[in-house]
Amino acid sequence: MDKTSLIGITLGIAAILSGQVLEGGHISSLVQPTAFLIVVGGTLGAVMLQSPLPVFRDGMRMAKWVFVPPSSNHTDLIAQTTDWSHIARKEGLLALEERIETLPDPFVRKGLQLLIDGVEPQHLRDVLEVEIDAWSAQMRLGAKIWEAAGGYAPTIGILGAVMGLIHVMENLSDPSRLGSGIAVAFAATIYGVAFANLIFLPISKKLLAHVASGVSQREMLVDGLVGIASGDNPRIIESRMQGYVS
Amino acid sequence: MDKTSLIGITLGIAAILSGQVLEGGHISSLVQPTAFLIVVGGTLGAVMLQSPLPVFRDGMRMAKWVFVPPSSNHTDLIAQTTDWSHIARKEGLLALEERIETLPDPFVRKGLQLLIDGVEPQHLRDVLEVEIDAWSAQMRLGAKIWEAAGGYAPTIGILGAVMGLIHVMENLSDPSRLGSGIAVAFAATIYGVAFANLIFLPISKKLLAHVASGVSQREMLVDGLVGIASGDNPRIIESRMQGYVS
Amino acid sequence: MDKTSLIGITLGIAAILSGQVLEGGHISSLVQPTAFLIVVGGTLGAVMLQSPLPVFRDGMRMAKWVFVPPSSNHTDLIAQTTDWSHIARKEGLLALEERIETLPDPFVRKGLQLLIDGVEPQHLRDVLEVEIDAWSAQMRLGAKIWEAAGGYAPTIGILGAVMGLIHVMENLSDPSRLGSGIAVAFAATIYGVAFANLIFLPISKKLLAHVASGVSQREMLVDGLVGIASGDNPRIIESRMQGYVS
Amino acid sequence: MDKTSLIGITLGIAAILSGQVLEGGHISSLVQPTAFLIVVGGTLGAVMLQSPLPVFRDGMRMAKWVFVPPSSNHTDLIAQTTDWSHIARKEGLLALEERIETLPDPFVRKGLQLLIDGVEPQHLRDVLEVEIDAWSAQMRLGAKIWEAAGGYAPTIGILGAVMGLIHVMENLSDPSRLGSGIAVAFAATIYGVAFANLIFLPISKKLLAHVASGVSQREMLVDGLVGIASGDNPRIIESRMQGYVS
Amino acid sequence: MDKTSLIGITLGIAAILSGQVLEGGHISSLVQPTAFLIVVGGTLGAVMLQSPLPVFRDGMRMAKWVFVPPSSNHTDLIAQTTDWSHIARKEGLLALEERIETLPDPFVRKGLQLLIDGVEPQHLRDVLEVEIDAWSAQMRLGAKIWEAAGGYAPTIGILGAVMGLIHVMENLSDPSRLGSGIAVAFAATIYGVAFANLIFLPISKKLLAHVASGVSQREMLVDGLVGIASGDNPRIIESRMQGYVS
Repeated sequence: MDKTSLIGITLGIAAILSGQVLEGGHISSLVQPTAFLIVVGGTLGAVMLQSPLPVFRDGMRMAKWVFVPPSSNHTDLIAQTTDWSHIARKEGLLALEERIETLPDPFVRKGLQLLIDGVEPQHLRDVLEVEIDAWSAQMRLGAKIWEAAGGYAPTIGILGAVMGLIHVMENLSDPSRLGSGIAVAFAATIYGVAFANLIFLPISKKLLAHVASGVSQREMLVDGLVGIASGDNPRIIESRMQGYVS
Repeated sequence: MDKTSLIGITLGIAAILSGQVLEGGHISSLVQPTAFLIVVGGTLGAVMLQSPLPVFRDGMRMAKWVFVPPSSNHTDLIAQTTDWSHIARKEGLLALEERIETLPDPFVRKGLQLLIDGVEPQHLRDVLEVEIDAWSAQMRLGAKIWEAAGGYAPTIGILGAVMGLIHVMENLSDPSRLGSGIAVAFAATIYGVAFANLIFLPISKKLLAHVASGVSQREMLVDGLVGIASGDNPRIIESRMQGYVS
Repeated sequence: MDKTSLIGITLGIAAILSGQVLEGGHISSLVQPTAFLIVVGGTLGAVMLQSPLPVFRDGMRMAKWVFVPPSSNHTDLIAQTTDWSHIARKEGLLALEERIETLPDPFVRKGLQLLIDGVEPQHLRDVLEVEIDAWSAQMRLGAKIWEAAGGYAPTIGILGAVMGLIHVMENLSDPSRLGSGIAVAFAATIYGVAFANLIFLPISKKLLAHVASGVSQREMLVDGLVGIASGDNPRIIESRMQGYVS
Repeated sequence: MDKTSLIGITLGIAAILSGQVLEGGHISSLVQPTAFLIVVGGTLGAVMLQSPLPVFRDGMRMAKWVFVPPSSNHTDLIAQTTDWSHIARKEGLLALEERIETLPDPFVRKGLQLLIDGVEPQHLRDVLEVEIDAWSAQMRLGAKIWEAAGGYAPTIGILGAVMGLIHVMENLSDPSRLGSGIAVAFAATIYGVAFANLIFLPISKKLLAHVASGVSQREMLVDGLVGIASGDNPRIIESRMQGYVS
Repeated sequence: MDKTSLIGITLGIAAILSGQVLEGGHISSLVQPTAFLIVVGGTLGAVMLQSPLPVFRDGMRMAKWVFVPPSSNHTDLIAQTTDWSHIARKEGLLALEERIETLPDPFVRKGLQLLIDGVEPQHLRDVLEVEIDAWSAQMRLGAKIWEAAGGYAPTIGILGAVMGLIHVMENLSDPSRLGSGIAVAFAATIYGVAFANLIFLPISKKLLAHVASGVSQREMLVDGLVGIASGDNPRIIESRMQGYVS
């Protein structure tokens, strides 16, 4: 459970709402279903039009990482890989075979399998680098769905506001509707800015941070596996992997 | 047929129009041919001025990819290339000659021809990489036509709005025209923002995604062909190509 | 003659002007010499202050490319280079000497001269790559003059508008001047946005497209010359050069 | 103590406050706790939602660098490393062992330890480069927390302003509240712009400058250590390290 | 003396001022010391907060390059280096020793010294490339001071304008102060936009152009010195250096 995310989203929304109350306004004047429909519907439409379906699905699925981060851990990976390097030194690469079954992550499994198959170090690195690049590119596209939503939402909010203002202008002869009409129109601006800045853009950044961390772990692991394949000293391997933690 | 695109564009426009109706406005007040002329004419003019003719044509032609994606498929390409690698192992490179005729894609055909000609691996990669770079650059330019349109449309919408406001100001002595005049002026803003955010920018992003996918497929194929030319084991070739799918 | 440019600039300006007429306004209300002076003078001043004189001159001279593109042609260059490769094979490099005189482009001439001088392939590539980089950097700077103008114009337009609004505010006691004063002020906004989006930015993009095309031709030529110097088969040379056309 | 920072932040805030006084306004009208709550709470919420906890902590901890820069010094490092290179020449690498204890910086200590362990030059560089990249990436993420805050603050300020305007519009029937209501609303804009431009963005830039300086020092040190490991002449080592100072 | 700079800055300011006069306004209404204090003080404060002191000093010192460019010249450098290559061929590298004294630029002096010391070509290039990178990075940071100022000025101008508007709103009961109050408020916008677009941003661009030119000269010189160290033919050396001029 990512408590920082939870505090962040709660704090952001609470600041806005309590600000509204402290100014003497009613929270109910921020509730405008029409403005909500325009901003959320328009943003969702734009994001769907721009995304291939698998990318859109990735983006939606990744959203849960905001609160439940993908479980992975530089320190455990280092311990595990150093352990493998000791086994490989003492008992040979084939002794690692039985470890493969227990590995949950397909990338780690593939890397270990290639190591056991005796693929030579440079080749091992090349194959796994291609995989890291592909994974990273795919995950980044998913995370960018939210960045795109954060780009569309404010402008569609403005679109809703201008539509509201047109409506107001057409009813200028009835001044009693002027104020509340503008209030409705401005709600679209608020929704656009708030969704983008309190939700969509921060989500995109947090997902990108998880992707970057995943890439760093995978590259650290590749360095370790290549070290084992090259017959490096376990202490050197561990020391080099430590470099990724800093 | 790309259903996500269809849903996206429908959802975006429906959200705007139903928002207008729910606010109690008439859809007809969003229909302003003059504002449409200014925004679409101005945007089209700017895009044509900035584009060499072949690039402009590419951009227009690529637009159909939004609904009918270019048919291609990582999985089929892997199966096909692995198949070739088995044939090359058993019967030699020349046995691939008869396969060339049936290939629809000129890039795949050229790659296979070079392989059969016995061009050495590094050379094969170099020649095909040049081709991928050229194809990618050309297609990206085409897709960027739509990004450019998405950049020009909102500012030209503002231009139309300011022109409308001038018109209103010149008729201040006749207050009855004030409201409706501003309504006309704001329609240009709406058109500019809506075309850009609901249509042009998402189209550009979707086309760029198709281009990126095409580049990834071509690079995967080159890796496979170079593997065959180097006499690699078919299992290694397939495994490395799988890395592009992730 | 680049007809796309001509259509583009005509279409953009016609859309704005006919929009003004259709709204019932006079084209004359868009003619504000003071606003023109502020926007064009300010933009020109900013561009001159930011540019070294040779860059400024390049930018001005390149502007004619918008309508009269630099004459050059991938296909002709391929035919010519393939022709040279045949001559070099049959009659030796020195037989190319007489071709140099007839070449109009100094870059092509220098490349051929180095080839005839028997400079070794890698060296030939290095020398010419330096030249391409320098040419590309210089031409890009020239094209970016127009991008800079497109960046300054709208903000200076806003500056003119705010100056106009100050003027209006100082004369609030005379309401009859309010409307027309604001009209004058807004004209600066229109000039800034229109010059930037209908002229300056598209020009910059078109010039950059010509530069990119020139770089691609030069790199294709270098590939061809290096192929001749390496004694490659003319068919391979032609095939590799074709890769740049895609 | 970084006096430039102190002068900068004082000057910025003093300019705003004295501007307010000189215009005849009261500083008290800039004190709006509600606007402060919205801008600071919303910005903090967005930043927390977007940041993994360790990154958020790094960003907060690094903030003190603005006034108390991390102590480090190109010149001292050069003198120290040149000194080591003389010792290594005369007494051998092992003679450096006793120096390790006294080194406060873990990176320098690790580099010297690897040198003494007799790790070969290219390997030494590789291991330390990985560490530099990881350190640089981590510190840059921390500094970017402030850039993100500088991006969110103005838009959340606008959000607060629009909320204030809605409030005003709902009370149009009571004109006496119009002016002061708008004044409250605008305070949110001021807070957003001022926090971003006078505090958050400059802090981010200063932290990034410290990170860049730290990277440069570490790379200079690696060059020096690799020089010692390669048995280079101390004069050459010093000369090359001097190149980083310029 | 850089006449383009002088014309540029004069033209920009003259266009604004004469525009003001032609509209019938007084230049005196553009003179608002309070707005000046807010914009210049706030911008200076932000720039000082963001910059390490040496970078800030570099930026200030480099400002004089706008009118008095750093004296250097591709053509002279080529002539000089070609001259050295002839001497080195005829009389050996040591004959260049006496030339060092007369060289004003420390970079050229260091390069020639390393050449005379007989440092091998690749090493010579490496040492000098490090120096070029460090010089370029340092100078670019200095030039970016002005870009940063150009980024802060308009937003601080808006901050000043909003402060002015608050002031106006608080005095709505006294309509006679409305117009002139807004005029004062808008002056801050004008100062922010004008300083940024007519002075700060163009200065930054011009300084960056001088830095780029300096880098190009240094790289050209390194190519020449490496050529001499490799014993290349003077004609080849000159031809390759010519490539940087284009």
